[in-house]
Amino acid sequence: MLKEYNRYLEYIDGELHLEGVSLKALAEEFGTPLYVYSASHIRDRVRAYREAFPDALICYAVKANFNPSIIRVAREEGAGADIVSGGELYASLLAGVEPSRIVYAGVGKTLKELEYAIKSDILMFNVESRMELDVLNHLAESLGKKIRIAIRVNPDVDPKTHPYISTGMKKSKFGVDIKHAKQEYQYAGKLKNLEVVGIHCHIGSQILDVSPYIEAVEKVVDLYHELVRSGFEIRYVDIGGGLGIKYKPDQSNPEPKDLAEAVMPALKGVDAKILLEPGRSIVGNAGLLITRVEFLKDKGHKHFVIVDAGMNDLIRPAMYDAYHHIVPVVKRDTGYIKTDIVGPICETGDFLALDREIQKVERGDYLAVLSAGAYGFAMSSHYNVRPRACEVLVEKQSYKIIRERETYAYIFKGE
Amino acid sequence: MLKEYNRYLEYIDGELHLEGVSLKALAEEFGTPLYVYSASHIRDRVRAYREAFPDALICYAVKANFNPSIIRVAREEGAGADIVSGGELYASLLAGVEPSRIVYAGVGKTLKELEYAIKSDILMFNVESRMELDVLNHLAESLGKKIRIAIRVNPDVDPKTHPYISTGMKKSKFGVDIKHAKQEYQYAGKLKNLEVVGIHCHIGSQILDVSPYIEAVEKVVDLYHELVRSGFEIRYVDIGGGLGIKYKPDQSNPEPKDLAEAVMPALKGVDAKILLEPGRSIVGNAGLLITRVEFLKDKGHKHFVIVDAGMNDLIRPAMYDAYHHIVPVVKRDTGYIKTDIVGPICETGDFLALDREIQKVERGDYLAVLSAGAYGFAMSSHYNVRPRACEVLVEKQSYKIIRERETYAYIFKGE
Repeated sequence: MLKEYNRYLEYIDGELHLEGVSLKALAEEFGTPLYVYSASHIRDRVRAYREAFPDALICYAVKANFNPSIIRVAREEGAGADIVSGGELYASLLAGVEPSRIVYAGVGKTLKELEYAIKSDILMFNVESRMELDVLNHLAESLGKKIRIAIRVNPDVDPKTHPYISTGMKKSKFGVDIKHAKQEYQYAGKLKNLEVVGIHCHIGSQILDVSPYIEAVEKVVDLYHELVRSGFEIRYVDIGGGLGIKYKPDQSNPEPKDLAEAVMPALKGVDAKILLEPGRSIVGNAGLLITRVEFLKDKGHKHFVIVDAGMNDLIRPAMYDAYHHIVPVVKRDTGYIKTDIVGPICETGDFLALDREIQKVERGDYLAVLSAGAYGFAMSSHYNVRPRACEVLVEKQSYKIIRERETYAYIFKGE
Repeated sequence: MLKEYNRYLEYIDGELHLEGVSLKALAEEFGTPLYVYSASHIRDRVRAYREAFPDALICYAVKANFNPSIIRVAREEGAGADIVSGGELYASLLAGVEPSRIVYAGVGKTLKELEYAIKSDILMFNVESRMELDVLNHLAESLGKKIRIAIRVNPDVDPKTHPYISTGMKKSKFGVDIKHAKQEYQYAGKLKNLEVVGIHCHIGSQILDVSPYIEAVEKVVDLYHELVRSGFEIRYVDIGGGLGIKYKPDQSNPEPKDLAEAVMPALKGVDAKILLEPGRSIVGNAGLLITRVEFLKDKGHKHFVIVDAGMNDLIRPAMYDAYHHIVPVVKRDTGYIKTDIVGPICETGDFLALDREIQKVERGDYLAVLSAGAYGFAMSSHYNVRPRACEVLVEKQSYKIIRERETYAYIFKGE
């Protein structure tokens, strides 16, 4: 069952290993909480996208996990980067991603960020509003540049995921309603420092059924043909990301090839490079969070396992009511217990799992929180003045630290 | 109406000022998003607690805002510190709080944190479980120390607040059920390196009605008398924090004197020092978050004001569905608009206000998000690789920077 999350994850003599590296040994060497990622899993996932979409450019969505060493692994397999901020551009460049493989979306790009991206000569700006078209054109003019843009269109499709990560519905802040897209394209076409080269759409995140993609891509392709007929030279059709991953043991998730099978018929006849922006489906199940059991508490009516990872390390359970599967790092023949697995933070919202049946544990045992590679460290904070976790990357029985555990001094450096 | 939030907040010639300092000028000097705090408000609030509870020790709850300059202002007015981690101890010591005025609660204290606190000789450990009693005793013994403890008791009182910040109910991870507290005290009394000196209870946060406090304190006082009869020398009764503040314009909040009036009758006859742990009610309305309007977007059926502060800067609206009042930094006679005020982050959950009526704004205008002094910066993250905000402290027409805006290089320092 573990292999359905990550095929490099297995028990060897009762001890959990990732790519042949003992997670207990890593926890002992680097301490906990500890994020561990499998490079081979990341490589496999990028390759799965490249095989499913052989002519497409796969832009890894940096928002899922911005560690430059993670971005670098994706890049080594041929991925570009999908960014939403100047900081993500910085991280992508640190990781060696070529600017000609970077696309930049986001509803609130600042002048400073836009200038940084223009000067970096990235592939394409995915523009989200009329006002942004004007700002971008004006800025490009003042910098003496002509820049490539797509307009992000909102196809009004329900991706059937958590409301916070549904981004392609009519009521959302993202993009331009697809019904009015043509007039925005015509407006953009008249702006001298913009070169209109693409269409962008992204409907949401953690999508487990490919049918909303079909609906969205069909609408995008209709727009593509309409624009081509109107004389636009559309060289890029960016169909976004958002493919879901397995979080729950009974959950199955679509593969890149399922997505390709679903959307390719609609894309036939489109003479443009296809772009995809997968994030979670690249890194989500590459990573896990190792945490140590600090205390056990039996309140009679309720049992608690208190661990050293808190909502500052992994906010998804509190924020999105997300399920993360949790397994022991060392298997033991001790029976099971139903328990809440909670962190050390001063809130009832600080939990990793509620009423979960797990192997009985003792103080000092390690637990592995699966599917923590995406939106894990990326959303972590210093809440309760907790230094953030260390990150380790494993590959083929070797490992390296890719972000040191923070110190108290680091947290207060700016003060 | 503004003065009900913070009496140092006012429009002067149509421009918002805090303690006589122009917020527009600060935004221009330091950029946005920008946290600005009023030192005088913090001083007033600590004094209000000290006047309401003249013999008590007021321990500022560092979790609300851990900036050492903020802690220092509270300390200058006579506050100690209520901490929940080694990092908060570090921050409190940086701010010059005397260890003899620091109390330490939290369900998941690690050995390293406990050792740090023991060596710092803090006033009291608020112990949350039987197992922690053992761990603490063993550690104290190995360090050759005897340490002062209270047991955190859970009075099973519903504070009528958000479930995530209700901490005194039976089903919560915090404390020891008050019904079984006596046996825990008897157990603790036998541990050689622990000196049992207190009772601790904390029922939650953002509590707007003082009646749950009465119920909780009455139960604590019953326990106090029971313990004294059994021969315990209880020198400290810590009744926690959690007093709510005004977030909504139509909301009124209890003052420290209301809390004192409510609980003092029950505390009569208690021959112990009273401790309180206010956090939000000290700093919540001391602070505001200044943000700049980046883009406006009229989708016909829906209007959006896109600002440069995101959920990485202030997560409370997304996390707790929290209301924050938002006012223009510069008043104008332009009429009103109903709009969503949203941030630049790639999630629909990234909003500051939904369907809110505000003064019509333009690109470049500044907005002030009120009541952002507590659980604002403290919960901020680098999500979307966004450097965290700058923090400025104002007092009597002067101002100083208390935390610099982060750089991209800072974010990637550990990598």
